[in-house]
Amino acid sequence: MARYQAILAYDGSDFCGFQRQAKSKGRRSVQGELEGALRRLGWQGKAVLFAGRTDAGVHACGQVVAFDLDWAHDTVALQAALNAYLPRDVAVRRVSLASPDFHPRYRAKARRYRYHLFCDPVRDPLRERYAWRVWPSLAREPLCEATASLLGTHDFAAFGSPPRRGGNTVRTVFQAEWETEGQEGWTFTITANAFLLHMVRRVVGLLVTIGQGKRETEAVQTYLRNPSGEKVRFLAPPQGLTLLEVLF
Amino acid sequence: MARYQAILAYDGSDFCGFQRQAKSKGRRSVQGELEGALRRLGWQGKAVLFAGRTDAGVHACGQVVAFDLDWAHDTVALQAALNAYLPRDVAVRRVSLASPDFHPRYRAKARRYRYHLFCDPVRDPLRERYAWRVWPSLAREPLCEATASLLGTHDFAAFGSPPRRGGNTVRTVFQAEWETEGQEGWTFTITANAFLLHMVRRVVGLLVTIGQGKRETEAVQTYLRNPSGEKVRFLAPPQGLTLLEVLF
Repeated sequence: MARYQAILAYDGSDFCGFQRQAKSKGRRSVQGELEGALRRLGWQGKAVLFAGRTDAGVHACGQVVAFDLDWAHDTVALQAALNAYLPRDVAVRRVSLASPDFHPRYRAKARRYRYHLFCDPVRDPLRERYAWRVWPSLAREPLCEATASLLGTHDFAAFGSPPRRGGNTVRTVFQAEWETEGQEGWTFTITANAFLLHMVRRVVGLLVTIGQGKRETEAVQTYLRNPSGEKVRFLAPPQGLTLLEVLF
Repeated sequence: MARYQAILAYDGSDFCGFQRQAKSKGRRSVQGELEGALRRLGWQGKAVLFAGRTDAGVHACGQVVAFDLDWAHDTVALQAALNAYLPRDVAVRRVSLASPDFHPRYRAKARRYRYHLFCDPVRDPLRERYAWRVWPSLAREPLCEATASLLGTHDFAAFGSPPRRGGNTVRTVFQAEWETEGQEGWTFTITANAFLLHMVRRVVGLLVTIGQGKRETEAVQTYLRNPSGEKVRFLAPPQGLTLLEVLF
């Protein structure tokens, strides 16, 4: 028996989220699919360990999981076997041996997410599976100014809920930046030690509202200074969001 | 009654192709969806006119269609009404008035297609909806050398069938070029006066085989010199292909 670490990529469109959930009977979860594939290789564990939950519809190319398995062959064969059993919208991108006490959530030092959006008044079927269509378009200056105020250690309670009720809502954001790409495309990258539930989607929702001139640039600071006040109401939709990588 | 021209974008994944087909009962076609939306606006025509068929699974961001309609409002309202009735995977990107005799197929001077692929030994769910995963990877020199021999006027009979049986198989290729993008990504752009059925997919299938060193660089010329010989057997899969634009 050895502990393995695997990097997962998935298209979240047809999943109820990463985590297997009792109440979502009949809806597919990424965790459920992975555990199903592992069981076919003789895995008898209760649950795989993983770095972070992702919401329904959110994608990943760098989710990290760990599991204990009795496996007689090498990691290349293990990866191939898992990918043969996993459905088309999930794949194991890498497998390696891990130390017996490796836990992707507790060991992670930071997570990086990316959000794709594009500004267009008209629907665009080829872009909207992996990006949010936004209109009117964004003004760079207020967008970037508001984004900068996210950096550092703050109480992000107004941007999301802690994984466990009553848990700590202080998080440290190491990186938060926008890049433009192609025709009115925008990419937002954010790295933090950890994230609250829905935090990236609330951050993007608020920043876009600011970039469109519907709210003042200082709104981010106002929310950060009033963690016990009301939450940011508007969540950016899930399909623009991808869990890019987990840093150890 | 006036003739309108519209530019369509669609995600071809869940369609039997652009064209409505008697034998594909129950399978959705892009044409069928568009005609359904037009009927809700009072259209009573038999069939819309269009620039080119696309295969099942092939995408488009620049398909051109034309239809006659009695419409009391402006083209902005027409576009909005159509997009409200069209399903999520089809959208009208632009609508304009056309001359009464405008026919997108006969009037088109050229069509431009793009094919996306990436080289990776492992499945990648986030890329494979719109690109072909290829392994082993491609060598640039034989790939580009073989590609150059496509340029000009040739009998492409070995690369596809004419739209009507016994039709002309001579076509003129104006542009054929590869660009790399990001991690082992490749984009092929090809422009010709017109294309035979499956022509782009056979061209890409053969070029990739050459780029992988499985066939000699001269294979393209051999096929072009023997139009009555056997056809290229290997078609690149449809999901990498997009009809980019129709030039008038």
